[in-house]
Amino acid sequence: MISKTPQPPYYAVIFSSLRTEGDNGYCEMAEKMIELAKVQDGFLGAESARNEIGITVSYWKDAGSILKWREHAEHSIARIYGREKWYTAFKVRIALVERDYGFER
Amino acid sequence: MISKTPQPPYYAVIFSSLRTEGDNGYCEMAEKMIELAKVQDGFLGAESARNEIGITVSYWKDAGSILKWREHAEHSIARIYGREKWYTAFKVRIALVERDYGFER
Repeated sequence: MISKTPQPPYYAVIFSSLRTEGDNGYCEMAEKMIELAKVQDGFLGAESARNEIGITVSYWKDAGSILKWREHAEHSIARIYGREKWYTAFKVRIALVERDYGFER
Repeated sequence: MISKTPQPPYYAVIFSSLRTEGDNGYCEMAEKMIELAKVQDGFLGAESARNEIGITVSYWKDAGSILKWREHAEHSIARIYGREKWYTAFKVRIALVERDYGFER
């Protein structure tokens, strides 16, 4: 569940969001988008959790693969719905992962 | 709740974790650490959510302020407990936020 990303450098897209009330088709689309992201060139993994705030971090090989995913037709439609229906606020941060380390029992 | 970070560039520390069973003093320490982080030089904000996976993203002015926080005495003790008691696995990724954008209703 913690993404098995390669040695840095690679990119992270940190998506932080606050949801509107109700599902309004959100869950179905969220699952669809993650399945679609997985088959994109340069996709390295994603992690997601939500309590009051939702945080989804997706990992990408380079800035070009993020841009292509941003412009993907179905993802573009989902992004429009996001502003119209699903989120009261969100922030997207595009970040270059410079180093990482981990621990496993 | 979504951190009001300044114009990029700034740093994000993405902490992804899987917890052990039980609290074992975790919640108290987690709250203490966030209060302590808030008063560190260069701290810009933090966002946190947990379901099966926990994701905490903290934002920092520069790499130096991250390093100082890493070496902070109380935080160092918490980090040791993390490996001993609280986590079955974690990953820390240090990333330079190059651009961001957002939406608010």
